[in-house]
Amino acid sequence: MEEMEEMEEEGIEEMEEMEEMGEIRRAAGGVTAAGGFYAAGAEAGVKYKDRKDMALIYSPAPCVCAGVYTSNVVKAAPVLWDREITSGGGKVQAVVVNSGIANACTGDEGYRYCKETAEAAAAALGIEEDAVLIASTGVIGMQLPMERITAGVKLLAEGRADTKEAGDDAAHAIMTTDTVDKQAAVRVTIGGKTVTVGGMCKGSGMIHPNMCTMLAFVTTDVCITKELLCEALQTDVRDTFNMVSVDGDTSTNDTLLVLANGAAGNPTICEKGEDYALFCRALHAVNETLARKIAGDGEGATALFETKVIHAASKEDARKLARSVICSNLTKAAIFGHDANWGRILCALGYAGVPFDPGKVELRFQNRAGDLLICRGGQAADYSEEEAGRILSEPEVTVLVDMKMGEASACAWGCDLSYDYVRINADYRS
Amino acid sequence: MEEMEEMEEEGIEEMEEMEEMGEIRRAAGGVTAAGGFYAAGAEAGVKYKDRKDMALIYSPAPCVCAGVYTSNVVKAAPVLWDREITSGGGKVQAVVVNSGIANACTGDEGYRYCKETAEAAAAALGIEEDAVLIASTGVIGMQLPMERITAGVKLLAEGRADTKEAGDDAAHAIMTTDTVDKQAAVRVTIGGKTVTVGGMCKGSGMIHPNMCTMLAFVTTDVCITKELLCEALQTDVRDTFNMVSVDGDTSTNDTLLVLANGAAGNPTICEKGEDYALFCRALHAVNETLARKIAGDGEGATALFETKVIHAASKEDARKLARSVICSNLTKAAIFGHDANWGRILCALGYAGVPFDPGKVELRFQNRAGDLLICRGGQAADYSEEEAGRILSEPEVTVLVDMKMGEASACAWGCDLSYDYVRINADYRS
Repeated sequence: MEEMEEMEEEGIEEMEEMEEMGEIRRAAGGVTAAGGFYAAGAEAGVKYKDRKDMALIYSPAPCVCAGVYTSNVVKAAPVLWDREITSGGGKVQAVVVNSGIANACTGDEGYRYCKETAEAAAAALGIEEDAVLIASTGVIGMQLPMERITAGVKLLAEGRADTKEAGDDAAHAIMTTDTVDKQAAVRVTIGGKTVTVGGMCKGSGMIHPNMCTMLAFVTTDVCITKELLCEALQTDVRDTFNMVSVDGDTSTNDTLLVLANGAAGNPTICEKGEDYALFCRALHAVNETLARKIAGDGEGATALFETKVIHAASKEDARKLARSVICSNLTKAAIFGHDANWGRILCALGYAGVPFDPGKVELRFQNRAGDLLICRGGQAADYSEEEAGRILSEPEVTVLVDMKMGEASACAWGCDLSYDYVRINADYRS
Repeated sequence: MEEMEEMEEEGIEEMEEMEEMGEIRRAAGGVTAAGGFYAAGAEAGVKYKDRKDMALIYSPAPCVCAGVYTSNVVKAAPVLWDREITSGGGKVQAVVVNSGIANACTGDEGYRYCKETAEAAAAALGIEEDAVLIASTGVIGMQLPMERITAGVKLLAEGRADTKEAGDDAAHAIMTTDTVDKQAAVRVTIGGKTVTVGGMCKGSGMIHPNMCTMLAFVTTDVCITKELLCEALQTDVRDTFNMVSVDGDTSTNDTLLVLANGAAGNPTICEKGEDYALFCRALHAVNETLARKIAGDGEGATALFETKVIHAASKEDARKLARSVICSNLTKAAIFGHDANWGRILCALGYAGVPFDPGKVELRFQNRAGDLLICRGGQAADYSEEEAGRILSEPEVTVLVDMKMGEASACAWGCDLSYDYVRINADYRS
């Protein structure tokens, strides 16, 4: 992912405050929440039977679009296809997804299949081939069964609708080892018009920060220039999707796409003023919600494991420290075992690549069950193991890390490491 | 760990060849294999009962010494103690180890306990306090029970012997979740004299490249200057202990010490000639054997998982690529499941931070059960899943990665990811 100039930082608290103030209103649904967006899910039998495995997002109005993709050197064919389109100036109208076969490590043949998929969608929807983005996830190294894909595309085009149900169908169709569908939507008023941002995503393995380690699709009816949409997205992923890790494996297929069709009718956002800031916050609310959902539904996860780092010397330090903790296998196993093994957390901070004084660090476990100081001045605080166990038994656990160095903070999301993670991944292909 | 200038590279094949030629002869035992070294193990009850949990290495003749320590910002008290001593010019005579409590995150009190341990050992052995090195492993954040430690030191001093059995006792006493003790020794002729290098180490969790992520102690009777001993060690760990990973967690206590007492009587090695090169090879043979043993006995491991990268553009690239594969949770879970999921291997190469053309990569599974091409030109080769399953069912599995770019190669060692890794670490403290 490109490094972007640091934007003005918005604290997490500030965001929550704004939500409470009603500036950003949660809404139902996902990719069809914004005006003028259609979706569909279909059983195309790409790899599995009796489940939806292809999805469509469609906007009759051409959309400006932005994409962020895996930083893996090994990039799946659809990543190459989409990057070509989103880096150009053209508008897009559709996204076609399959969740059976990743179309990664498939060479020229795999890329040709992207083109054929786009052609099929273009024909079925009456749009241009280069207005079709493609995404896929699933087994690496297999070629797509193109007859089923093209038949699936037709089903999707015929079944498309702008209802919440259609959005739900699409959100289900992109799932692989996910146990629940993942959607989010918010509304915000920009230039006197209601603007909606909604999205869906899927995890739940091969999830590690470094662009976005999953598939995510966000639609919005905002009027905005392509330039600012790209900047808003690239800035926001640094604090949302890039702060998620399930297993440390950065996938070959990671794709995050944002489509904006302008249906809200607000004055086009073409400079970094108040409207832009407002849109960024709405986008952030959706992205953060989706990112948290990916972490909480990580393969085999029994708990969402959040690390909040405060008072770090710099934003980048705060991010590195937070990510190091949620990536630690030992810490994750301790969370699974409801074991307040804070030494492993301090150890994970210690190898994050950030200089600090271990003698200053303070650690707390927090959630709805309590707020417990477990380490002060780099040593054990006098806490009750019983209370710690109670907090760690909840489905969401936050460790608050106070570095006592500066003013920067960051949040990262992961999950515990369970027997089921091993079970799922020891035999994924069969 | 300090970055050292690249030494002349010795290929793995070359080393094995030399062994076959009898230049380097395997020997029995560990830290007492070299002349003039004593050892002992004792039940001190530091944390557990009915098991040896303290060890001693002792040489009546003062030793030049070299140490490499964890790169973790959070360093345990004994690491601070040893670094002070090994970075100075003084000679050492003893190492005292406890395997119950890590003495990490214990502040000034923890450091004072190192001094008290050294004082006790100095009194019991009749040597100077600053000739005593300390190492520990176990639970983080607890203070040492000093009465038991000092009583243990006396037991060790009384029980010391220069026999193989005494070395075995010490090797058992430093184990934590290890299932087997880990020792190695070799002999080599330098300047007409027989020189012995022997060592012991313990794993088996919190193991990740970046200095040595474990405790390891190597003794040798070679005559060598401190300068060259340090250089030999720091160069060698880059291809041995730093190429091991069990779980990605770099510990707070990692310590590798080498003591050379000169008892062999060879002409002192004081320049980088043939004698130095010969000693380096002997040291490498011991270090590599110990490193492989740590990987093969990783927590919950059912298989040693080796990755050999060949034809990489540079040595550093080769190391990064090899380490990325053995660190991938998804690949490790596939190895546990005997699943030839080569896409995950290619994916892990892809996020190693090394540029390459995925379309050129060739992958093979190799061990005594077979040699199978599974991926050519970045795509699936036409292989038999049955044969792959047979190879993957062995207790040692090698994946050979041919980058087809240059002449550099590297080897890394890890293990599979099993249910037992989770079980062991979900409830380590209780």
